[in-house]
Amino acid sequence: MPSSALMTDLYELTMLAGYYEHGMCEHPASFDLFFRKNPFHGGYAVFAGLEPVLRYLEELHFTETDLAYLESLNLFKTGFLDYLKKFHFRCTVTAPPEGTVVFANEPLVTVEGSLAEAQLVETAMLNILNFQTLIATKAARIQQAAGEGVVVEFGLRRAHGPNGGLSVSRAAYIGGVRSTSNTWAGQVFGIPVKGTHAHSWVMAFSTELDAFRAYAEVFPDSAILLVDTYDTLLSGIPNAIRVAKELRAKGHELRGIRLDSGDLAYLSRQARNIFDKEGFPAVRIVASNELDEHVISSIRDDGGKVDIYGVGTELATAGGPGGGALGGVYKLVSFDGQPRMKTTSDITKATLPGIKSLFRLLDSDGRFLQDVICCKGEQVEAGVTVFDPVNPSRHITVPECQVTDLRSKVMEQGRVIADLPGLDDSADRCAHQLKCLPEGTLRLKNPHLYKVSISPGLHHLRRQLMDRYSR
Amino acid sequence: MPSSALMTDLYELTMLAGYYEHGMCEHPASFDLFFRKNPFHGGYAVFAGLEPVLRYLEELHFTETDLAYLESLNLFKTGFLDYLKKFHFRCTVTAPPEGTVVFANEPLVTVEGSLAEAQLVETAMLNILNFQTLIATKAARIQQAAGEGVVVEFGLRRAHGPNGGLSVSRAAYIGGVRSTSNTWAGQVFGIPVKGTHAHSWVMAFSTELDAFRAYAEVFPDSAILLVDTYDTLLSGIPNAIRVAKELRAKGHELRGIRLDSGDLAYLSRQARNIFDKEGFPAVRIVASNELDEHVISSIRDDGGKVDIYGVGTELATAGGPGGGALGGVYKLVSFDGQPRMKTTSDITKATLPGIKSLFRLLDSDGRFLQDVICCKGEQVEAGVTVFDPVNPSRHITVPECQVTDLRSKVMEQGRVIADLPGLDDSADRCAHQLKCLPEGTLRLKNPHLYKVSISPGLHHLRRQLMDRYSR
Repeated sequence: MPSSALMTDLYELTMLAGYYEHGMCEHPASFDLFFRKNPFHGGYAVFAGLEPVLRYLEELHFTETDLAYLESLNLFKTGFLDYLKKFHFRCTVTAPPEGTVVFANEPLVTVEGSLAEAQLVETAMLNILNFQTLIATKAARIQQAAGEGVVVEFGLRRAHGPNGGLSVSRAAYIGGVRSTSNTWAGQVFGIPVKGTHAHSWVMAFSTELDAFRAYAEVFPDSAILLVDTYDTLLSGIPNAIRVAKELRAKGHELRGIRLDSGDLAYLSRQARNIFDKEGFPAVRIVASNELDEHVISSIRDDGGKVDIYGVGTELATAGGPGGGALGGVYKLVSFDGQPRMKTTSDITKATLPGIKSLFRLLDSDGRFLQDVICCKGEQVEAGVTVFDPVNPSRHITVPECQVTDLRSKVMEQGRVIADLPGLDDSADRCAHQLKCLPEGTLRLKNPHLYKVSISPGLHHLRRQLMDRYSR
Repeated sequence: MPSSALMTDLYELTMLAGYYEHGMCEHPASFDLFFRKNPFHGGYAVFAGLEPVLRYLEELHFTETDLAYLESLNLFKTGFLDYLKKFHFRCTVTAPPEGTVVFANEPLVTVEGSLAEAQLVETAMLNILNFQTLIATKAARIQQAAGEGVVVEFGLRRAHGPNGGLSVSRAAYIGGVRSTSNTWAGQVFGIPVKGTHAHSWVMAFSTELDAFRAYAEVFPDSAILLVDTYDTLLSGIPNAIRVAKELRAKGHELRGIRLDSGDLAYLSRQARNIFDKEGFPAVRIVASNELDEHVISSIRDDGGKVDIYGVGTELATAGGPGGGALGGVYKLVSFDGQPRMKTTSDITKATLPGIKSLFRLLDSDGRFLQDVICCKGEQVEAGVTVFDPVNPSRHITVPECQVTDLRSKVMEQGRVIADLPGLDDSADRCAHQLKCLPEGTLRLKNPHLYKVSISPGLHHLRRQLMDRYSR
């Protein structure tokens, strides 16, 4: 991932200049990165993008060209530009591993260090984590909707730029979509690459049958034929059957067909019947054409016989209600050793003050009961009362359970100190955790809302600070 | 823009392998890139992304690493990999200049050359042009909604990855949003960079007043103060007024304030009144918080007094109905010198066959009357009957008018042969063309539909081919 120290909103730099002039750059500060609403009006999100963020933080520095550009803006004094010349990121970063299932309002990434260093990285961290977490979540929803069906990410042509496409493939893999048409992503991340052929292949031959024969000749054991260029049932499928028979006569098997238009539930049932009747039960049926989790779910509800879903636009752009962007934010929670919070008349927008821990409570089968956000150092155990963060009159007592810390230090003094998991580990973590969620949490619409509570210590601290600010 | 020859769907490569095995790579072919629906259910789109596409095409080649990766897939034979080793793009490319206002179904980019070369670049061309055209169009809609108001692109933190953010700034500039908070975009594209400060600045000081004073001290002539950290009317604006007076006493002027929550129409009216009454009519009012063209329009309808709109998420992700992605496609229109088309029962999805020209008809004042798509070499002039492409029973006679060719050859033998316009020229072109559209075309909802017709020659050719395929 190419990056630049200038990959930031200008205001991070003007604030830094301000801190520099006021001698505040080295004051200790902590920031939390979190989001306020689960994307897609869903019940969860899948944390992704940490490794690219850590690489960016490790490499962060201002080149001579960067400094010359900043000087040309006539906004910054020489002293500050000299400070930037020596700038390095030396903070501590605490985060869950990628593929962790997370929820609204949970502190995901906490950055502790000097005010200037922790502030400067806001925009880039949000950019990378917002996007990858959004896509990983969309991928998880789509793979859940597909059940045992295979999903292939087909989104490159509708992704937000070349690198957007690359990040889509990576994040989608973590969320559960474990193959892509994007050959570059195959090379860079080792993700299995898949594909069929386009309508243009068929149109470059005199007849559809010639086109199918020619393709099967070159790929006798892996051909998936696109059957809707002229007419799926009258032309495409009959021609594919003919080619399947010809292949078999030569000792090969047609891999599959792709449906790319029309009623995919109906056409896949028809296709399945025809291929089964003709003795080709192993021919796979691929479907594509503006699929998302809701369309896939409805195809399955209607008895569709799709084996492989090619999902492009909606996955690559995280489309649909509550999609498009994850509203992650990065807020100051501690300064000069004192907890800070943004107050507001709307308690849902008030921040949780101080440096915190994020615990997950599990029952004896390893199923997730709820998460609890605590003050750093505070313990959660059976018998403790924890509070609903928005409506503190709702509280519950922690039962006997296992308590796990969801996060760990991954960077110290600006160097990665953890062994970062590979994409397979992250994808496996996600798949496992999705199975541990309470019933209904995975529902596409109006899901069960997983409980995230705050500890007595955090509840008390927040009240204290709200009282102080409102005086 | 970083790129790779592997930035492609796998199927482009398997099709190429197929063409190679069948000796078809060098057969002459032409492809059209177009979209079928204007984005955002709007009346137009702004063409953008051509220069990055041409740079990609010029640089396109397979490295040893790329070839080793492809070999590792066990899909391709040695002969084909040797062919890729020598692969270069030598086609002719015809396109309008960036910033041209374009419409659904118009051939935007036409690629003519060998089948293999023209086919391979499909995915990458779509990726770049779909995204930049989408963002330029969104930017144009937002700037139109803002009227005389200034719009600043604030989207980096919600953009689809770092390079996504960079492309957003570039395309938004072409569409009319001529400043950004993205410092990297400032450096790379020379776009003016703008910014204020964050809530964290205020929270890093004991009081809001201290924070405002500290910021104004460092930026006495350019400070824009964020006034909603605690309470906009009770705290933020009174503190900003106090700092404005202190600045003036020292010979400086407060530049502005930023509203980032609450009823922006109401708060901006209140703020305007207060600052005017206190003798600060030049203080600018900046508004941000999930703005898009519809919110901006409603703020203005409600008498809002916003001078500058900071637009982030919705611009960077091209959000809203009909947004998220532009559905551009790339279709074979000619092969071996013969026109080709994709037929379908749905005439709106049938392609327009053959190599074509795209003309715009203008009245004597230079206002746009309509566009006409013709067969290459066919002329449009007064008295000719042109047809509605979807409903050919609707036709009109071309009046006396100026006829301009919207496109020109920009690449020949794989080399750029045109002087590509700078971003300012493209943005000026867009701004000018938007003014020349028929009344109602710019309307945000249910716009007037600009007429795009097909010529008699194209109408005839399409009928001929449909008859042939349906036999």
